[in-house]
This record gives sequence, structure tokens and C-alpha cells, in this order.
Amino acid sequence: MTNATDLLPRLTSLLGPAAVITQGADLEPYAIDWRRLFPGKPACVVRPSSVEQVARIVQICREAGAAIVPQGGNTGLAGGAVPDASGTQVVLSLNRMAAIRSVDPVGLTIEAEAGCILKVAQDAAGAAGRLLPISLAAEGSATIGGVIAANAGGVNVLRYGMTRSLVLGLEVVLPDGTIVHGLRKLRKDNAGYDWKQFFIGSEGTLGIVTAAVLRLLPRPKHSVTALLSVADPAAALRLLELAQDELGDQISAFELISATSMQLVAKHAGLKAPIAEGEWFVLIEAASSLAGLREAAETMLGAAFEKGMALDGVIAESGAQASQLWALREHVTESEAREGKSVKHDVSVPLTEVPRFLIEAGEALAAGAPGTRVNAFGHLGDGNIHYNVLVDERHDASHVNRIVHDVVAAFGGSISAEHGIGQYRVGELARYRAAPEMDLARTIKRALDPDNRLNPGKVLSA
Amino acid sequence: MTNATDLLPRLTSLLGPAAVITQGADLEPYAIDWRRLFPGKPACVVRPSSVEQVARIVQICREAGAAIVPQGGNTGLAGGAVPDASGTQVVLSLNRMAAIRSVDPVGLTIEAEAGCILKVAQDAAGAAGRLLPISLAAEGSATIGGVIAANAGGVNVLRYGMTRSLVLGLEVVLPDGTIVHGLRKLRKDNAGYDWKQFFIGSEGTLGIVTAAVLRLLPRPKHSVTALLSVADPAAALRLLELAQDELGDQISAFELISATSMQLVAKHAGLKAPIAEGEWFVLIEAASSLAGLREAAETMLGAAFEKGMALDGVIAESGAQASQLWALREHVTESEAREGKSVKHDVSVPLTEVPRFLIEAGEALAAGAPGTRVNAFGHLGDGNIHYNVLVDERHDASHVNRIVHDVVAAFGGSISAEHGIGQYRVGELARYRAAPEMDLARTIKRALDPDNRLNPGKVLSA
Repeated sequence: MTNATDLLPRLTSLLGPAAVITQGADLEPYAIDWRRLFPGKPACVVRPSSVEQVARIVQICREAGAAIVPQGGNTGLAGGAVPDASGTQVVLSLNRMAAIRSVDPVGLTIEAEAGCILKVAQDAAGAAGRLLPISLAAEGSATIGGVIAANAGGVNVLRYGMTRSLVLGLEVVLPDGTIVHGLRKLRKDNAGYDWKQFFIGSEGTLGIVTAAVLRLLPRPKHSVTALLSVADPAAALRLLELAQDELGDQISAFELISATSMQLVAKHAGLKAPIAEGEWFVLIEAASSLAGLREAAETMLGAAFEKGMALDGVIAESGAQASQLWALREHVTESEAREGKSVKHDVSVPLTEVPRFLIEAGEALAAGAPGTRVNAFGHLGDGNIHYNVLVDERHDASHVNRIVHDVVAAFGGSISAEHGIGQYRVGELARYRAAPEMDLARTIKRALDPDNRLNPGKVLSA
Repeated sequence: MTNATDLLPRLTSLLGPAAVITQGADLEPYAIDWRRLFPGKPACVVRPSSVEQVARIVQICREAGAAIVPQGGNTGLAGGAVPDASGTQVVLSLNRMAAIRSVDPVGLTIEAEAGCILKVAQDAAGAAGRLLPISLAAEGSATIGGVIAANAGGVNVLRYGMTRSLVLGLEVVLPDGTIVHGLRKLRKDNAGYDWKQFFIGSEGTLGIVTAAVLRLLPRPKHSVTALLSVADPAAALRLLELAQDELGDQISAFELISATSMQLVAKHAGLKAPIAEGEWFVLIEAASSLAGLREAAETMLGAAFEKGMALDGVIAESGAQASQLWALREHVTESEAREGKSVKHDVSVPLTEVPRFLIEAGEALAAGAPGTRVNAFGHLGDGNIHYNVLVDERHDASHVNRIVHDVVAAFGGSISAEHGIGQYRVGELARYRAAPEMDLARTIKRALDPDNRLNPGKVLSA
């Protein structure tokens, strides 16, 4: 047993001085999230290069009574990967464990260390003619370990599911320093509890992911991208049903964009939809290994116009044009930031409730927070709306949160569809999840981390 | 606090006499598995009609110190749903909770109670023009709760994943009688630990699944089925790679069948493959919403012949012909039973290791258990081989198990790809899984069921 004063010398002795950062400009990127919303102050940052080093760090911190905050690319949106301000927490960065260990294009697997950048893993899969379908805005910085800890979503969830559905094997270091080796490359494995599920999406509070085997998919050869204007979200839903009938599971994205979002993009990014104005827009992408995709998409759009589901629309004639259509969607967040202050919500409701949710949330805000403007957009195909509210100095963020989340709860929705809880939504989670669910989460946390040493205060209150 | 003698009166008072079976012919189907391999003797069978009754039963059993064995359709292959022979365990059958509560063809969800027969749920999805892709031999008797507790596999895993990947929401009764309501219809939900994952595949040892929301998929309009003969499993793998290139994720089954399997089917079921004899056969099915599937399949097969990957082959010209091809595969198990005694293995190895596994397992058996014959077939696309060994009175089943499983372990495989552990593989699991994995499983079991009252002796030794 050692005490806290031994911590730094012991970590330095284990890792060497270059892998232990205690101060200066080098510390900064690890101490605060990239949006600079959650500033923290770590005791130090350690950068191990092997799972054995991770295990030793965990043991040393345990003996010193220090808490550990695992960190990947630090691209999270809920402050889940940054330390608190106490100056006592150790940030354990996985960024030196970044190797891709293997890519198997026939067995459809990739094995990588936790610190491997998502984009690097995507490219490795692509070079083998296969697809790693996790795709999100931060993919150039986010890491494999981070996307697993966060159960990341992104633009391909409609077709390929969340990150969870792509994890085949996991190597984890437990809060007591035990290494659990589970880097199996099996698509089917019902031999005992599937313990890797406990760690996926647990935001570093139950164990530290050090390496993973992910599932790859065949790479579609053909794709089609279309932008349509529709009268309202209910029409967008009818369009989704038609698309499911005609294109089946080859739909890879079905995004809803409000007129407000489009206006912000026009104003701040100078981009304009190449179709007639509408109250709502839908961006559809489908991809397939089969020829005939485009013809099916054209048939579908023809039917959509005939039935009055779509008001206007365009199918991209080239990859460049498809990128232009996607640019409209991709510039929404940045344009919103340029417009001014906003309160963001990453919510989901049952898909078919999205139209009613949008109406009722709008009414609740008009009544409870007059002067706010709604900037709604998101993954309609997943029931996931980024329901952001433009506010000014009159408005209190927690009050706006409460109004929106109360409507979400009334529809049986989630206050965090893909961003997770981190430190940002801990209070909101406790408010909206029923006691038996919270108790169950605490039971698991206590069982695996009885001393609350791993990312304390994230997901569950400390 | 009550004691064991109060148990039956209290259960009968709660449920009424008709819902508590204590003896006679009515008890028999609940006391033994359908293959009659795992006979048990329950204290009684209770058949609740609501989640509240399930919770009360759990509390009453807890107070009486009685263990509970949850049971669905009792179609498991590992004895996971039958009681032990002590006469003290209470079988809790979900078969009266069988309602389908909703089907949403746009939001792509179905909500059903645990006792709903899988086939009934499939048909309800089909009537709404959608697909519930869990498909297995026992689908006419297996229940939704059972397939979730077992994380069932089946013939569609290659395309749609195991049952786990289709579960959106769950209602569970915990070992202490707490009801956890989580019947959310959300495709994305990262609000806190995804606790439903703990229960999926835990074979009724951590909680009792009482209802679920499952994900549906668009129903493909076109399908193509082909049977090919190939020189060896390595050629079958090359064929799989080609199929992934040409048909992408529209491949829904890629089954491997040995010449031995085909000979057994010819001998006992009178069915013969309509192509030239070969050492190995591959049955491929693909389905899509897009026209052009058949053309792509024909192109693919042409290339397969040209490159010498396939020796002979046929594409079904009609649904009836497709069924005839599938009948060859579906009669393997029954024909094997008619041939004589066999020792079954439900194993998986990394996909690309299947050819080497088959060679090495064959060699190990020839050396260690002379006189045995291998009947290998299964889901090559998942790396899952039903590696059954025909034996006679000379051979000891555990010895044969050991030989095969040792080879599986050497390839980083699983001793139970889809059938689970139940009571049958408890010893084997403890042998082949490393201590940290077993400890982790015990930690979770202890945390949720400290008195070991829920399905004791299944998955983990009692």
C-alpha cells in the first residue's frame, strides 16, 4: 500500500518521464474537451504503450487512492473523457496504443488498439475492399476505444446499427487491474455471459478498453443520394415507409432538415439547396452492391411525387453533387454556432412519434421559453433529432433542457440518443430514468468498481 | 419470512389452482427438454399471466428459499430451461404471457410478451409487410423470451446478426422481484448503461424477461438460392469472398454441407442434390428489395466456375426449387439421428480458420477416437460449424467433446456458437474460458442474484 505522494514517482518509474505529463501546454489538450465546455485539472496524464502498462497504472492508482479518467480522442460531446477540477484524477490516454493489428477481408474483421483513430481504421478496411461503417463528424480524431466506450452512433446507424453491433471482441482492464482478454474474432459466440456488452457504452466507468475486434462489411459499389422537400415531418415519415418498401435495407441515411436549418446554412455557409423552398427537407442515401439501385430510387421518387409526399427533389448526378447535397446537412451545426448561442439536445423518440414530438416540443417552448427559435435536424430514420434551441441572454439553459426533455419523456424517448451522459447529463439521467433502472446501473457499477475509482461522476453521480 | 412448506399454498393463492401444476401428465412437458436428454423434477410449475404476477412469484419463492427456473418454449439444446432433479425448483413458464402488443411497419418495431411463439411474431411482422429475421428450426415452439434469454442464432445471422442485435427494449423481473420497465421503442439510446444487454443471452440466470420490443426490417422482394459443389472448404471460402464482392450484404445464408451429410440425407431422407457429386457443398441464399439480384448472382456463379472455385451448381428456378435445395440442408440433423448415435458440437472459429479447423479436428479424432465419423455442416458465413461425430459403443462422449473442443480452443474459437451453455456445457465452459472471464461472470451473477435463486447451475456451476 502506498499513498498519494508516491503516485507520480511510481507512474514515472513505470512509463518513463516522456509518458507522464504533469504540467504545461502539453497537458492542456487532455484537461479540457475540444468544445472547451468542461475544463478540468488532472493530477497528471499518463500515456501507456501496452495493456500490461495500463494494468500496472490501474494498480498503482488504486494503491494511491487516485481516480482514473480514460481518454481516447477526447472528441466526446458530454464531457465524459475529461477530469474534474480537483487536481487529483489521473487521465489515462490511450493515444500511444494505436496499432491496427490485422484486417481480414474474407472473415470481415479488423483488430485494432484502443487509440487507433477511427478514420485510420476506416481507411485500412477500405484498402482491403471492405467497409467499417462507423462514420461520424469527429472520425478524424475519435479513437476506436472512445467510440466503443461511447457506443457511438453517426450517419450509418439506420443501416448498420450503433457501434455495439459491430464489436466482436474486446480486451479490457478492470478497475482492480485485471486484464480480461477477449479479442475473439467470432461472429457467433454464446459461451457464457457476453461480458463485453457491459463495457460498450459505459463511458469508461466500468473498465478501460485497450483493444477491439470490429466487424467489417462488404463495400457497396453503387450509391444514390437525393434531396427532397416535403410539407411536414409526417410527409417525411410516409416517404421513409415508401423508401423501405422500394429500397429495403439498402437505405443508409434518411436525414431530416428543417427550413430553419437550411436558412442558417444559407446565411452563414453560403450554401443553398438546389430545389424549391419547403418547410422541411429530407436527405436520403442508399448504397448497394447491386446494380439497379438508381433505377429503384428513381421509381421511388416518381411515386413520391405522384402521391404528393414530396414537393420537389433532386437526385445527385455525380459523387461531387452528392457531396454538395451532404454539405448542406454537414454545415448545420457550424452555421448554428455562427448564428449565436444555442441549447443542444440529442434526443430520440419512437420513429413514428417524431412529427408529434416536433409539434409538442415547439408548443412547449413557445409557451415556456418565449423568444427561443428551434433548429431541428437529424437522423429521422433512427428517430434521433438534434433538437437545438437558439436562445439569447433571457433564456436559462437548464430551463430549456427541462422543457424539451419533459416532452421527450412523455413520448417514451431518450435524452441522449447517441452522445452519451458523460458529466453533462448526469442530473438529467437521474431525473428521467426510473429508480429500478438507476438502481440496476448502480449495482453493476458497485460490483465492478466498488471504490468508484474509474471515471467517477460520469454517467452516475459520484 | 415464510418457509418452504408455505410455497405451494401461497403460489396457488396468488395464481389460482389452474395456474399451478404440481403433478401428473401436465407436469411432464415442463420437467424435461424436448430431446429428453435432461430430465428434472420440479416442485411445481407456475404459469403467471402478468409481469406483476411474475414479480410476486419471485418474491414468494425468495421468501421460501426456492430456486426459479424460467421457461419459454422449452426448445433449448443445452438443458437451460429445465429444473434439476431435486424436486425443490419452481419452473416459471411464460407461456400464458403470449400477446403481441403492437407492430409498427414504419418505425420497424414489434412489441410482444415473453411467451409469444417466435413463428407467431414472424407472421405478425409479415402481415405488416416487414421481416422479423430471427429464424431457426424450433421457431414453431420457441418463444420471444426464450430466444432473447438464449441470444438465439439461426440461419439469418450472417445478414441480420444474433437476436441481441434485434432487441430494442426489454421488461425484466430481477431476482429480488423488482420489475424493470424498459420497453422503449428506440433505435438509438445512449442514456446510461444499456442494462438490457446483461439479460440477453444470460439464459435466465440474471433476470426473467417478461416482454420485449424487437426491431423489424424491410422485407426483401427478390431472392435467389443456389447450391454448388466445391473441392474443399478453402474453395468455399474463396466463393464466400466472391459472393461478398458481388452481392454485398444481401447474402442471407452461406451454408457448408459435407459429402457425408449429403450421403446421410440421401440414405435416410431419400433426397439427392441435383448437381454432380462433390466432397463439399455450399448453399447460398441472397435476398434484396432491388431487382438485379438474380443477374448479379448469375454473374457471380459464372465467375466462380471460370475461376474453378465451384465444380458444379444450380440456381433455383422457383420458390419450390429453392425449398428443395433447402430441404437437403434441413434434413441433415434428422438423417444423422437415423444413422445412429452422435456427439454434437456447436462450435465457431474465425471464419478464415474453418478449413484448417476441419482438417485438424478430423486428424485429432482419427488419432484420438478411431472409428468415429465426422458429419460436419453449418453456417460457414458465420464461422459456425455443427461438427457432429458419429460414434458407436466404443466411444465416450466426453472424450470426443474434449478432442474437438481442444482444437476449437487452439483456433480461438467458441465451444458454443449459438446453443448456449445451459447445464450441458457448464463444465466445458469453465475449462475453456480463462479465469478473468469466469470471475467477471461470477461477479455479475453475485451482484444481481446474490442468493443464487435464479436458474442456479446453468451457465455457471451452482
